[in-house]
Amino acid sequence: MLDVCLLGTAGMMPLPNRWLTALSLKYNGSNILIDCGEGTQIAMKEAGINFKPIDILCITHFHADHISGLPGLLLTMGNAERTEPLTIIGPKGLTRVVTALRTIAPELPFEIKCIELNEQDEYFEMNGYHIHAFRVKHAVLCYGYSVEIKRSGRFSVERANEKEIPMRLWNPLQKGNTVEFEGRVYTPDMVLGPARKGIKVTYCTDSRPLEHIVEAAEGSDLFICEGMYAEKEKIVKAKQYKHMTFYEAADMAKRAGVKELWLTHFSPSLVRADDYMPQVRDIFANAYLGKDAKSVELMFDED
Amino acid sequence: MLDVCLLGTAGMMPLPNRWLTALSLKYNGSNILIDCGEGTQIAMKEAGINFKPIDILCITHFHADHISGLPGLLLTMGNAERTEPLTIIGPKGLTRVVTALRTIAPELPFEIKCIELNEQDEYFEMNGYHIHAFRVKHAVLCYGYSVEIKRSGRFSVERANEKEIPMRLWNPLQKGNTVEFEGRVYTPDMVLGPARKGIKVTYCTDSRPLEHIVEAAEGSDLFICEGMYAEKEKIVKAKQYKHMTFYEAADMAKRAGVKELWLTHFSPSLVRADDYMPQVRDIFANAYLGKDAKSVELMFDED
Repeated sequence: MLDVCLLGTAGMMPLPNRWLTALSLKYNGSNILIDCGEGTQIAMKEAGINFKPIDILCITHFHADHISGLPGLLLTMGNAERTEPLTIIGPKGLTRVVTALRTIAPELPFEIKCIELNEQDEYFEMNGYHIHAFRVKHAVLCYGYSVEIKRSGRFSVERANEKEIPMRLWNPLQKGNTVEFEGRVYTPDMVLGPARKGIKVTYCTDSRPLEHIVEAAEGSDLFICEGMYAEKEKIVKAKQYKHMTFYEAADMAKRAGVKELWLTHFSPSLVRADDYMPQVRDIFANAYLGKDAKSVELMFDED
Repeated sequence: MLDVCLLGTAGMMPLPNRWLTALSLKYNGSNILIDCGEGTQIAMKEAGINFKPIDILCITHFHADHISGLPGLLLTMGNAERTEPLTIIGPKGLTRVVTALRTIAPELPFEIKCIELNEQDEYFEMNGYHIHAFRVKHAVLCYGYSVEIKRSGRFSVERANEKEIPMRLWNPLQKGNTVEFEGRVYTPDMVLGPARKGIKVTYCTDSRPLEHIVEAAEGSDLFICEGMYAEKEKIVKAKQYKHMTFYEAADMAKRAGVKELWLTHFSPSLVRADDYMPQVRDIFANAYLGKDAKSVELMFDED
């Protein structure tokens, strides 16, 4: 089960009742946070999300509305008695930016490991998360992230017995491990069926629409995408500032065959966002407006 | 008239319903902001305070809860179309810290002038404000600030006429200017009575109690002082972390002969602060708990 919480839906600047866009994912006691703008730590407190389990922080890009909350977050994680290392993934230049922001958070009780992204696509596996960082098209170097929880094939007791596999090995094999025991090598495919559909969330803000995003979001259970502008005439601004309209996001959701779309990262000037949703749903029916602390528990499909 | 707004009352970390401690002062269309923690720009929006008129930012010290909102604030000031220079006053090392934080706010439509404090006491006069920065005693280099609006003596029409001072010179003389006209030098004291009492606000957080603070706060109309801890047994913590209790602040208010004390910068663990106020008022009667957006308009005394 993957806990998803959209911590905020604002773009550019935090507003009294709209936190900056950021996402919290939780699986097996390990949290991923995507972006950390000014006030994100408060949004987390409001949403009841703990600081200590944050193992991975993915930064989309270095505009202040996506990272200026980092010093405060790190200190609050320290106050929450975190001691395990924190991995921060982000575009080229990440180490320099983190070091600069830590000028006001120099002493922490945990280590920070920075991973700088250099390619169009980079893949990581950590704590059961399969993370895909994919380059997008913004005014500055910027990435989106897909996060997947894979699901191995169904365990066959019959085949395990047929192959006289000792019971003590069933559990590690089920977890996908190859095991050597009493001179024999046992591999997961000896007892597992074909891999089953996992859980996939894709998060993308601050970009023009791209085929690369559609490919990355392919088959997502949940696609969280920016919709900076809802007014159709603002396509001009979207192109100028390298953002998207609601309708461009909906079109990508349709082409990527995602299950559900949440729109986020609204312009401060966007007030009655709901009014535009009928037009969005003409393009992609299962589209919803992001709201601060909008949450869902994504489960594996029933067998 | 001086508009005072205590933007937040939290210490250490911003909380869902308690912004970090910061102060906004407004006089003659020019704003001073004292400290800028994470979320301060949101507190300003909630309090209806504009960003463009911020001419002076006074930083008490470089702990994140007092300055991590700087990048966001600068960008929001830029979005508010400020173009005039911003003066930032703060402890030694200010330029380095501001430069580091501007890693994520590199492009601004206004210039920033940093003034680094080196002495125990430093004085500045800007936009009608008389600012006194006074060194306090915290875990790191830290200053408090007194801000005064001076008030010249009453203008005497009789004396102006007696001395046959041309009417065109009355206004500049009233403003305290010395004027030379047709070979004669006219000075303000020729037409003004003794200086009258002005308006004085003193702001001090993150310190142990000090005689130096009492002297700086002398005769303030409003003394805004930290009270990190209200529980008497926490005097041990106050000493350890170089903070104060409610009662130490109240004692300083009494000795400085201030008119009114607002307590602020409460520990996140302090919940029922009101319960402790009777004991505070036993020490200093005119003491109040700071509240987010607590405001007052301080006027010159009636003549």
